[in-house]
Amino acid sequence: MYRSHTCGELNASAIGQEITLAGWVQKVRNKGFMIWVDLRDRYGITQLIFDEERSAEDLMNLAGTLAREFVIQVKGEVIERESKNPNIPTGDIEVLVKELQILNDSKTPPFTIEEETDGGEDLRMKYRYLDIRRNPVKNKLMFRHKVAMQVRNYLSDQGFIEVETPYLIKSTPEGARDFVVPSRMNEGQFYALPQSPQTFKQLLMVGGMDKYFQIVKCFRDEDLRADRQPEFTQIDCEMTFVEQEDILDIFEGLTRHLLKEIKGVEVEKFPRMTYAEAMKKYGNDKPDIRFGMEFAELDELAKNKGFNVFDQQELVVGIAVPGAASFTRKELDALISWVKRPQVGASGLVYAKYNEDGSMKSSVDKFYSEEDLKEWAEATGAKPGDLILVMAGDANKTRTQLSALRMHLGNELGLRKAEEFAPLWVVDFPLLEWDEETERYHAMHHPFTSPKPEDISKLESAPGEVRANAYDLVLNGNEIGGGSIRIHDQQMQSRMFDLLGFTKEEAKAQFGFLMDAFQYGAPPHGGIAFGFDRLTAILGGQESIRDYIAFPKNNAGRDIMIDAPAPLDDEQLEELHLRVKIE
Amino acid sequence: MYRSHTCGELNASAIGQEITLAGWVQKVRNKGFMIWVDLRDRYGITQLIFDEERSAEDLMNLAGTLAREFVIQVKGEVIERESKNPNIPTGDIEVLVKELQILNDSKTPPFTIEEETDGGEDLRMKYRYLDIRRNPVKNKLMFRHKVAMQVRNYLSDQGFIEVETPYLIKSTPEGARDFVVPSRMNEGQFYALPQSPQTFKQLLMVGGMDKYFQIVKCFRDEDLRADRQPEFTQIDCEMTFVEQEDILDIFEGLTRHLLKEIKGVEVEKFPRMTYAEAMKKYGNDKPDIRFGMEFAELDELAKNKGFNVFDQQELVVGIAVPGAASFTRKELDALISWVKRPQVGASGLVYAKYNEDGSMKSSVDKFYSEEDLKEWAEATGAKPGDLILVMAGDANKTRTQLSALRMHLGNELGLRKAEEFAPLWVVDFPLLEWDEETERYHAMHHPFTSPKPEDISKLESAPGEVRANAYDLVLNGNEIGGGSIRIHDQQMQSRMFDLLGFTKEEAKAQFGFLMDAFQYGAPPHGGIAFGFDRLTAILGGQESIRDYIAFPKNNAGRDIMIDAPAPLDDEQLEELHLRVKIE
Repeated sequence: MYRSHTCGELNASAIGQEITLAGWVQKVRNKGFMIWVDLRDRYGITQLIFDEERSAEDLMNLAGTLAREFVIQVKGEVIERESKNPNIPTGDIEVLVKELQILNDSKTPPFTIEEETDGGEDLRMKYRYLDIRRNPVKNKLMFRHKVAMQVRNYLSDQGFIEVETPYLIKSTPEGARDFVVPSRMNEGQFYALPQSPQTFKQLLMVGGMDKYFQIVKCFRDEDLRADRQPEFTQIDCEMTFVEQEDILDIFEGLTRHLLKEIKGVEVEKFPRMTYAEAMKKYGNDKPDIRFGMEFAELDELAKNKGFNVFDQQELVVGIAVPGAASFTRKELDALISWVKRPQVGASGLVYAKYNEDGSMKSSVDKFYSEEDLKEWAEATGAKPGDLILVMAGDANKTRTQLSALRMHLGNELGLRKAEEFAPLWVVDFPLLEWDEETERYHAMHHPFTSPKPEDISKLESAPGEVRANAYDLVLNGNEIGGGSIRIHDQQMQSRMFDLLGFTKEEAKAQFGFLMDAFQYGAPPHGGIAFGFDRLTAILGGQESIRDYIAFPKNNAGRDIMIDAPAPLDDEQLEELHLRVKIE
Repeated sequence: MYRSHTCGELNASAIGQEITLAGWVQKVRNKGFMIWVDLRDRYGITQLIFDEERSAEDLMNLAGTLAREFVIQVKGEVIERESKNPNIPTGDIEVLVKELQILNDSKTPPFTIEEETDGGEDLRMKYRYLDIRRNPVKNKLMFRHKVAMQVRNYLSDQGFIEVETPYLIKSTPEGARDFVVPSRMNEGQFYALPQSPQTFKQLLMVGGMDKYFQIVKCFRDEDLRADRQPEFTQIDCEMTFVEQEDILDIFEGLTRHLLKEIKGVEVEKFPRMTYAEAMKKYGNDKPDIRFGMEFAELDELAKNKGFNVFDQQELVVGIAVPGAASFTRKELDALISWVKRPQVGASGLVYAKYNEDGSMKSSVDKFYSEEDLKEWAEATGAKPGDLILVMAGDANKTRTQLSALRMHLGNELGLRKAEEFAPLWVVDFPLLEWDEETERYHAMHHPFTSPKPEDISKLESAPGEVRANAYDLVLNGNEIGGGSIRIHDQQMQSRMFDLLGFTKEEAKAQFGFLMDAFQYGAPPHGGIAFGFDRLTAILGGQESIRDYIAFPKNNAGRDIMIDAPAPLDDEQLEELHLRVKIE
């Protein structure tokens, strides 16, 4: 037994006990006649004391050699601490050490193992195992475990069965790029790693599994953006004999359960919004509804008043920013520059201050009377003290730009509170979206998503108008889950493949096994998948997923700790029937 | 709502209720004036009835079109059944159908969806989604889920944190072959899929995670034997500040918990046996101790009695087969042929019957008196009615052969009872084993396994005699788990790498990140990993793991349902900087 207790559990009730602890040296304060050591493990920190008057000389000498991150074992007596620390559970006591064993020494760590570290991102990634010793990272990994346990227990209690689907599957050209795995035994052939277990979960429904879930790694070989990982984790779910309403019900229940058990937050029935409404009101299919600033379309009020810039545009749309009438000229200029950045791409921004005294002052006073501006205020819901911001242009682009501005202001003004949770179902997504590049329709969700029955008649005549039985669960402006009711009818599935421009042969080559399966009594079914990394980060009140992943990769897809990927030796390539082709 | 109830829950208490069910048509019995349908879902089977006298004509007609595996929805009234079926929970009632909707039709399935199917292995694999509808397969997948939930809840309750380690890691030439994943973004470089999360779990211990577990997929590109899968699932565990005793204690607890919760079986404290003892007594490091037949070494009794065949051999060893004295000449000949098969490779088998009347009759009566044979009986523990079987030859080979024979007889005589559970710890494994081919020592467990302190002095002088802090958990003759206390000292790890014939450069290239990590305060740690597929199968009382895996691969590593692996198109290869080299 290396220890009788952990470093987080001793308190005043243990005073007088002889105990054994093991852990890492967090800090040493050496006053010569007395040495204090903070001993750390996963569970907490306990103060050790070595005292010239009470400890043998060789013990004092050995204690004098201790340095940060040494691994030690001590035996000693729990005594009352003179200067208590009310901030930690062990703050009332310390351990008067009688025996000390150095289990392992340590080089000086490349950054401090403290709440706030002095280590940069790259250094922390290279020495990830040291970063994990820090509370902020360690606690996030433990939090993730807690969330996963709650998900599994909830779904299992609801009758869901976790089924492991295979990782070595088949590459499909549709969607994002696959990671592939050359087969040694099947010369010149490759497996692919799953982008999601989509087809397998549908096959499980055909197989009568009724309620399936899996917390599962998925893989996408995409050019990485910040906060994207080539491997990520999904909570993947599918149910049989259900309509959209049943799915929303169950997974609203799951989300509510997590908010309650993990965060202690009780949430009302989740609001719902159609995709069309979300785009019109927030310019965004995953609106953050924790703060207002809903879009107001101002075409009628703002056009044909002599301001040419507006007159020619498809859409004039504004928002009221609460309490921002006091923005200085400099702050307003900064906003205008912000929307003109290439990442946003707006051509300009009109503002109108609704001053506390009831007066109005705008950047377009030449064209609009105070009365006109008051109408804008009414339309946007602006009250005295608020700032009205207006953009104009092509409808879709302008909405996207104003949405970016709205989110920017939400962040700047502290309206996006980490510990406030506002879930939202977005429903009635379009079934298809037109891709300019390939000049054909793509499935917005995926090719197995069913159209709404009332829109089926428009499938060939007006495909862009057809809505899908598809839904997203949005939390605080993030899509945390998305899914759909699937097509279970072979004829409808063929029609979809036609619409998506697949030839019969292509469809058969890629999804033949699923189409085969659908000939043998496919039940109505649907499902949803949650981005588990993202969900956990949001529940943890964080924007970045990286510290919720034990060993993340950097933006070039590299694990810089283990230095992967790496070249293979020739023998391995030979066995795989491969040759690397360097240009 | 597609259904008000499942097909498994209606019973006499529901008589008179109007209900809605949905499911698959299991069976149709059409008497013209009456049609009975067995409706099946995951939860059970409910009998539907259509009756000329009580059902409308078009309903009767529609019901007449139903065939096996059609997916239907019915509304109707629960009524008492005339001829009750006491074998199923719904056997007291049937549903008088008032509305029928065919949700999907079905081609005639390629095999029967019944407890016992007429489908061959290949057909069942190709149509796995239909095989999963069968109770025996469906129940095994549900059983697997139940075991996984119990494992997770138990370990979590014990303070273990499930941490997801990465799947895209780095290839190491040591051990089995890796599956590799070419990187598109890092030209000419490859990730590897983990054979186990071994190094990552050790890094988590260096990172202070204290107690880690993960139920995780692992990958090995080996030539497949029957009942081996290229991807398989492990319960992977690691603990800090522990000695071997702590690990055995916790995971004995887990195993006992599973046996109790899953099987309702209470097991005593698990017996322990050293590797040396297991080899001597059972010729096997994973002995099935559900039945006796322990080895008795007969060298002293059987050598130098004029039987040359024994005299020259390193080892003469026998077992007593209970109740087998009655074996006929034909049965004995069959046994002799069995041990001579190339898979066993023995040169022969000597037998001695200890007849019920107390007399002895052997195949070597020319050389041994009845008194001699009685001594054999005493040594092997044979009683009247038993059969003594004796083999001789090179010690290691002979033990292996006799072990194979012992297991064969255990199976033949029904001594290996599926519902009897006999766990066993095998401890004190050798640290190293000599590899004839490469003429060097290999790590028996893996290069991070620590030697027993008392054997460290022999590391260089007699490496083959050094025992490791390594242990296997054996259940019913299967190794279900294995692990070790790791080396946490850099000097000792370097010494190990030297012993294993790694140059400093090779060790650094392959395990540099772990050796780096060990410089920063590596704690004492150790762990264990369980083969989850195998564990589940054994708990389920089955020999084969295949039906405990939703979508297994065949012996050529192919998924014949989705037809993977498959060739990639040139564009994909181009992007990956690869060329396939076909000879």
